[in-house]
Amino acid sequence: MQSQLIIRILGILLMIFSITMVPPLAVAVIYGDGGGGAFFSGFLISLVTGLFLFLPRKKVRGELRTRDGFLVVVLFWAVLSLFGAIPLYLSSIDNFGLADAVFESFSGLTTTGATVIVGLDDLPHSVLFYRQQLQWLGGMGIIVLAVAILPMLGIGGMQLYRAETPGPVKDSKLTPRIAGTAKALWYIYLGLTIACALAYWGAGMSIFDAIGHSFSTVAIGGFSTHDESIGYFNNSQIELICIVFMIISGVNFSLHFAAVRGLSIDPYKRDPEFKVYLGIIGVVALIVTLVLVFQGGLGFSEAALDGLFHTVSIATTTGFATENFSTWPIFVPVLLIFASFIGGCAGSTGGGIKVIRFLLLFKQGAREIKKLIHPNAFFRIRVGETVLSENIIEAVWGFFATYVVLFFIFMLILMADGLDQVTAFSAVAACMNNLGPGLGEVAANYAGISDLSKWVLSIAMLFGRLEIFTLLVLFTPDFWRS
Amino acid sequence: MQSQLIIRILGILLMIFSITMVPPLAVAVIYGDGGGGAFFSGFLISLVTGLFLFLPRKKVRGELRTRDGFLVVVLFWAVLSLFGAIPLYLSSIDNFGLADAVFESFSGLTTTGATVIVGLDDLPHSVLFYRQQLQWLGGMGIIVLAVAILPMLGIGGMQLYRAETPGPVKDSKLTPRIAGTAKALWYIYLGLTIACALAYWGAGMSIFDAIGHSFSTVAIGGFSTHDESIGYFNNSQIELICIVFMIISGVNFSLHFAAVRGLSIDPYKRDPEFKVYLGIIGVVALIVTLVLVFQGGLGFSEAALDGLFHTVSIATTTGFATENFSTWPIFVPVLLIFASFIGGCAGSTGGGIKVIRFLLLFKQGAREIKKLIHPNAFFRIRVGETVLSENIIEAVWGFFATYVVLFFIFMLILMADGLDQVTAFSAVAACMNNLGPGLGEVAANYAGISDLSKWVLSIAMLFGRLEIFTLLVLFTPDFWRS
Ligand SMILES: [K+]
Ligand SMILES: [K+]
Repeated sequence: MQSQLIIRILGILLMIFSITMVPPLAVAVIYGDGGGGAFFSGFLISLVTGLFLFLPRKKVRGELRTRDGFLVVVLFWAVLSLFGAIPLYLSSIDNFGLADAVFESFSGLTTTGATVIVGLDDLPHSVLFYRQQLQWLGGMGIIVLAVAILPMLGIGGMQLYRAETPGPVKDSKLTPRIAGTAKALWYIYLGLTIACALAYWGAGMSIFDAIGHSFSTVAIGGFSTHDESIGYFNNSQIELICIVFMIISGVNFSLHFAAVRGLSIDPYKRDPEFKVYLGIIGVVALIVTLVLVFQGGLGFSEAALDGLFHTVSIATTTGFATENFSTWPIFVPVLLIFASFIGGCAGSTGGGIKVIRFLLLFKQGAREIKKLIHPNAFFRIRVGETVLSENIIEAVWGFFATYVVLFFIFMLILMADGLDQVTAFSAVAACMNNLGPGLGEVAANYAGISDLSKWVLSIAMLFGRLEIFTLLVLFTPDFWRS
Repeated sequence: MQSQLIIRILGILLMIFSITMVPPLAVAVIYGDGGGGAFFSGFLISLVTGLFLFLPRKKVRGELRTRDGFLVVVLFWAVLSLFGAIPLYLSSIDNFGLADAVFESFSGLTTTGATVIVGLDDLPHSVLFYRQQLQWLGGMGIIVLAVAILPMLGIGGMQLYRAETPGPVKDSKLTPRIAGTAKALWYIYLGLTIACALAYWGAGMSIFDAIGHSFSTVAIGGFSTHDESIGYFNNSQIELICIVFMIISGVNFSLHFAAVRGLSIDPYKRDPEFKVYLGIIGVVALIVTLVLVFQGGLGFSEAALDGLFHTVSIATTTGFATENFSTWPIFVPVLLIFASFIGGCAGSTGGGIKVIRFLLLFKQGAREIKKLIHPNAFFRIRVGETVLSENIIEAVWGFFATYVVLFFIFMLILMADGLDQVTAFSAVAACMNNLGPGLGEVAANYAGISDLSKWVLSIAMLFGRLEIFTLLVLFTPDFWRS
């Protein structure tokens, strides 16, 4: 472990992060909402702590190796989330304790989008902007994590993407590759954000709302500046724009990168995960629409828009809403929450287990059946033109099983803390899948649950966002052995 | 596919099965309960159908191969369950339709123990005896299935047990091995049943109840002759006897076989699955006891007995009850239902995913983490002294994932049919794990759900009992290709 180097990096990250307190500070000044103090304090505390960590190690040099990578990634989200909670804690939000501030900050940076705040519409603009910005920054982190870092660390079968990752060189040194990849992806991310903000603005949002919602849309975040979420605008054009950008943001950013570089849509056409992703959304949206028409009594066009919007929102794990979907025929919300377990594509800002892993599980399940019928034959698994190694397959299985077991452990903890089964189930699903809204007591927000449950769910968000294993390895003695 | 041979076997099975209608017929005569007619009709219909299938194929000879094995196993449970439903359908049970009769029969033969009957205490003795006997017969079938057939078919990693299976020869011919193994195991099963019946009788049950409950105890079935289940007797000695025999029946019968043959308890001591099995029961029982003491307000000794009884009953997937445990602090019933997913040991009459598979998943999960930390090292997985092949590991992963996915599909179907989430969750868990009692609307019995849900749950029981894949292969076109 290169402890000194890692602390140095953490210091730099905190100093950079402190700068992100400046835009909300500016918003506070522009709107004169009186919320500036909290962000100035947050800025100073983060900057000074960063300097404090960095300066004594100014001259430390070295290369991060794979094992250090796990620690840096976990610290990135955990430490920035904790420092990100400071301005929220210092803001004058009603009944806002430490557990609330940390929950909200984790929910922002992990792009989960679950909130403990009631009465968003009455908050200072600076706080609203800050929450949206946390999601956008989290999304930037995730794209680099998902496209550049996880494949290198080999988490849950993501070594599958090693060869395809954009970036200059392929070796075990982490830094140069990540820097190159990150830059390319961030341009795409920024471009999508600007396009999304312009579209929202053109469709009738205020500039403030347009920017804020573009942040949480491309980040698959789901935070809104209104308690009613996208439903506040009551504008089907905005809903359609939202649908389009959620779908785009749930796609592997490597595909966007390849498409932009080659000015061609061939990369999408060739990608098996992309097709399955669209297929799942299509089938689920159709089922939801039919249920809304035949059981919910809605007209077809209203049901189709509502069905498509919420399917895309939940299946990509964004978590926006235009209706209180938890009151729909109970089959629908549960189906949607199941879809959120599948989640977005690998290499996107979406959460969940990821479409590619389900595709691999399905293919491997089919192979197991073939093996039973033809016990002496040998079958390979292909995705597109790639033949999968047994290593990747086992990693995907391991990922899935660990995800499920961890899910049930979290659910039991919440139930032991007094939540009912529906609430516990949906809360853990919504947090581990980085989805956001749940059912039962957490359908509207998470304000009503205990502090313990908030802490547990904050950890669940982190586990989900870091694809379980990045965080889980840190709990093994083997990891800390030199 | 050797269709003629398979139909011939089915004919023989039906003729043998028809004989099992004779004991309840005798019970009807002894108690003069007027229920004899239904069993006489059941006897005749099964016998005649059996003859009708068998006689034209009297001279058909051949050897069953692996692929035929799947079909015979599925037909064994499906067809016998359907014919087993006949006397129940013909009996004078109130409001008992076709779906009810089939559900009850499937529940019996798969040793699930879920019932759609309200008012067991008022039923004719012959019907009560028949239900208990169905479970006992199902248990006989399962032992042979689990110890002799599944390892040979290689279902869900059970090829692990190929070398250990007792029986004369090892080759691909199914019949001679199974016959030898079956005989040895049935002696043990019969011995356990007699011991259990004598113990119950000595502790105060009537002979009728002692025999009936011994049947459903060693079969891990859970049917009772009373609505209050074991709680009816209100006798802690009976509860302790029940605990002991449930634990014994949840152990791999190969171990019992080896122990009896060698007159030694070494086989248990050497078996890793056995230790984990006892460990899980111990830990869960402790947690349940503590919750009952501190949240439920029970005295320690009462809580310990209640906790141990229900932990053993649910974790082994028996499904007996002495209290209405669904009203305990909700954490407890959900924890117990999660434990039923782990279930009994492989090669036992217990249901669920089986302890050995969870042990393998845990070891493989730990290996995945080690691989992340040491990407270039190579790790083997051992169980006891056996090194596992990648084939077995993948089969276990495939089993687990398919189990989970199928679980959620069944749950969605039930919710689409109108069940609430808690009921649907617990009903599918209770049926797929061959457990029996659920929560919510199905805590006491399954009488209140729709016919469609009953049919779906009957199929779920069959999927669970046949370890998913035995049934699933039949749904692939590849299986039917010659
Ligand atoms: K989200
Ligand atoms: K049972």
